[in-house]
Amino acid sequence: MKAYGSLVLFLGFLVLVKVQAGVLDNRIDQFELDESAGEESCNLPDDLRQEIKGYQSIVNKIIGRIVDGEFAGQTWNSLAELVDTFGARLSGSEQLEKAIDYVVDQMQHDQLENVHTENATVPHWVRGYESAQLVAPFKKNLALLGLGTSVGTPRGGIIADVIAVESFKEFEALTVEQVKGKIVVFVPQWESYGKTVVYRSKGASVASKKGAVATLIRSVTPFSIGSPHTGGQDYDEGVKKIPSACITVEDAEMILRKYRRGDRLTIHLEMEDRNLEPFVSRNTIGELVGTTYTNSSVVVVSGHLDSWDVGVGAMDDGGGALISWKALTFLKAMGLRAKRTIRAILWTGEEEGLWGGRAYKEEHKENEKKEFNFFFESDIGTFEPRGLDFTGNKDAECIFREIVKLMSPINATDFETPSDGGPDISHWTTRGFPGASLMNKNEKYFWFHHSAGDSMAVEDPKTLDKCAALWAAAAYVVADLSISMPKDVVD
Amino acid sequence: MKAYGSLVLFLGFLVLVKVQAGVLDNRIDQFELDESAGEESCNLPDDLRQEIKGYQSIVNKIIGRIVDGEFAGQTWNSLAELVDTFGARLSGSEQLEKAIDYVVDQMQHDQLENVHTENATVPHWVRGYESAQLVAPFKKNLALLGLGTSVGTPRGGIIADVIAVESFKEFEALTVEQVKGKIVVFVPQWESYGKTVVYRSKGASVASKKGAVATLIRSVTPFSIGSPHTGGQDYDEGVKKIPSACITVEDAEMILRKYRRGDRLTIHLEMEDRNLEPFVSRNTIGELVGTTYTNSSVVVVSGHLDSWDVGVGAMDDGGGALISWKALTFLKAMGLRAKRTIRAILWTGEEEGLWGGRAYKEEHKENEKKEFNFFFESDIGTFEPRGLDFTGNKDAECIFREIVKLMSPINATDFETPSDGGPDISHWTTRGFPGASLMNKNEKYFWFHHSAGDSMAVEDPKTLDKCAALWAAAAYVVADLSISMPKDVVD
Repeated sequence: MKAYGSLVLFLGFLVLVKVQAGVLDNRIDQFELDESAGEESCNLPDDLRQEIKGYQSIVNKIIGRIVDGEFAGQTWNSLAELVDTFGARLSGSEQLEKAIDYVVDQMQHDQLENVHTENATVPHWVRGYESAQLVAPFKKNLALLGLGTSVGTPRGGIIADVIAVESFKEFEALTVEQVKGKIVVFVPQWESYGKTVVYRSKGASVASKKGAVATLIRSVTPFSIGSPHTGGQDYDEGVKKIPSACITVEDAEMILRKYRRGDRLTIHLEMEDRNLEPFVSRNTIGELVGTTYTNSSVVVVSGHLDSWDVGVGAMDDGGGALISWKALTFLKAMGLRAKRTIRAILWTGEEEGLWGGRAYKEEHKENEKKEFNFFFESDIGTFEPRGLDFTGNKDAECIFREIVKLMSPINATDFETPSDGGPDISHWTTRGFPGASLMNKNEKYFWFHHSAGDSMAVEDPKTLDKCAALWAAAAYVVADLSISMPKDVVD
Repeated sequence: MKAYGSLVLFLGFLVLVKVQAGVLDNRIDQFELDESAGEESCNLPDDLRQEIKGYQSIVNKIIGRIVDGEFAGQTWNSLAELVDTFGARLSGSEQLEKAIDYVVDQMQHDQLENVHTENATVPHWVRGYESAQLVAPFKKNLALLGLGTSVGTPRGGIIADVIAVESFKEFEALTVEQVKGKIVVFVPQWESYGKTVVYRSKGASVASKKGAVATLIRSVTPFSIGSPHTGGQDYDEGVKKIPSACITVEDAEMILRKYRRGDRLTIHLEMEDRNLEPFVSRNTIGELVGTTYTNSSVVVVSGHLDSWDVGVGAMDDGGGALISWKALTFLKAMGLRAKRTIRAILWTGEEEGLWGGRAYKEEHKENEKKEFNFFFESDIGTFEPRGLDFTGNKDAECIFREIVKLMSPINATDFETPSDGGPDISHWTTRGFPGASLMNKNEKYFWFHHSAGDSMAVEDPKTLDKCAALWAAAAYVVADLSISMPKDVVD
């Protein structure tokens, strides 16, 4: 009952976040998570506890082979080859589709089973020429990145005076007269991603309602070395769609200081960004078929293959996609096959609003309670792994707590709950399916997120091995247990 | 004798660095400094030691007023106003000259004395349109920054295949046949600024000798979020001048990985950078005239006002310039006037090769031993102050050690020696004049250095207050002592 109560609470929280931040960003800053409900209330049958403990030697073996054995370094090398060959992988782009074809080939080469793709319709927004220049009181180019779904400016751009504010609250005090025809610059201080991203997601809608002609927003990051960060935004129903882009922390704060000193600032903004017709992309799937269950009680391990179009998406979410794929590759090569099928899904169209996951959910809805046992997702970095972030009912939690303890050889035994379970799998976890997200030492995650800094330089070979090892070991144990994971699914 | 020996050694080291890195970068990574010779060999007369200790109450008062009193926050605000008004201040630019005029006005407003400028001829290199694109095996824009003194490409740019190497040693093994007509990409791993900067300073000369048509170099930084870093370079006598620019760490490493996998890479590089006629700029000077000595035994406090043309030079070296100016402003406002004149000098043309300092040295050479008592310089950041980095003879060192101890109220009592004393004052300190450089917790200095990240976001108001307080207090004590600082000047 308690678990159900907290699930309802949690669903309420998610709805709140979605209302605040749009559907594009329901990834919640991990530091805001509630404390765990506590292990003391668990009352696992002793034989089940012993069964789980019995997996320690196999977990040790998996970790040993991936971290110190013949698989060491392979995950990083594969990720480097992927991102060095295809670069960024924006939804709707040729690069993403080529990367999908490549992963299908490679999964087959790795002898994964039932390798295939499943269609998912995704938005097709494209970045065109983008330029912003402060033209008064002095000339300065402003590095910028248009936001996903943003419209462009008319050809030749727009030139307008600036209104700069730190918060929506400060903006509320302004009249339509003051805002009309202006470029509104929002300069929110970083609080957390969950709290601050609303300026990126909703800034254009808020400003447009008072007649602004465009919005420029301080990049949503706690730390900057002059790089703008992109991301999604969405227009409220019925508002005039105005161009919206993020500028650097440095320029945004300079503009706010000058504006507050009484300077009149003028910006020339040109953006050729545009929305094309939706595009049929694909989720990429490979399996290690179970010995007992083949197409039911599946354990999903997942990350998304698409990325924004800046940087190369090595961190968001190349690392998560690679460990999901390679976990199966390594288990297969070790000859380890669990009772249940482990299915790697590399989602498409995550960045524009979880489109790959949504399409997959719809396609697999009819029989979903039978088909799915557990969902893993890695989409908040593959830095040094800390443990797993669980969502599900109390019984599943008590089982999963024991499983996480097995990860002691890589010191990744942290357990937290509740969580959102990761963005793509939230299509299931918010309805009561059990799932877990890879917790890692990702304190710097948002430094690189959606920027030119999202590159192989962020990924460390040894750390990525540990993440892959944790992924393979945890998925194997969940998939091989004598019982399926309990769940209370809300229809 | 020992001091003289280490001075010779130190001069030898400087020469070595200059040979390696060109005259543009003799700023040595602080972490490479030798250990201090030790305090135990000091034998200060007891009355002198007591005299210095007697300054503790006045030091406390200076620090109190600047850090916690009415001056708190003023240094940061003044720096913000300077960089927000004039932006970057490249040698030869209108912005730098306007900034100099502004500082002259402000120094007069602050009632500094003998406010004036002194001419210094500086190079006049300008950045034009710059673009680099990887055109094969796939298209990718490469963020780049041309290097000071680099020539441009022909109009329309050059398209050439890539040779990528990690080191000069690796490059040595290549033949003229292999290099001729290629763009050479140098991808040195960061070791330290002193060790790694040689690729930026000399890469073009090294590559040109084997017939390369251009060089692109991994930015000289230990950490990146997708930002290129500029800086100076110089051509060896007689080499064909080829365009040279830095690209991001991320792109450079990607290129090296692809090259090593056997990919054929082609880059289209266009740079309209060019060298114009030298320009007469100005060092900016203000004083607090001494009660006993007016134009002799001067204590100089200094930083440079020019910057590179990316970011706004808030860190390099707006902070150093501001604390030098404001130290005098605050002492004057407190009614503190020392026996000796304290002279703030805001150097010009530092970034292109210490031109402001060089011109000043030449102009003041005739009577320099009498004119100058001590040189302070801040040009390695104004983060949390740690103490002072001393260069000079043993007697001066022993006196200075006692002075540094007075900085305990802001926990800035670290003392190190030998050092290079800072780039601009090295015109004097390398010849035996005593001087000191502001040591601070600048572990992240090179993250921002010469990049778009060099902004007010790097500077903290409270920390800048502490630096200004240390600067004012140390300069005051040196200027007010009963004896001048001992020196052994090499003619």
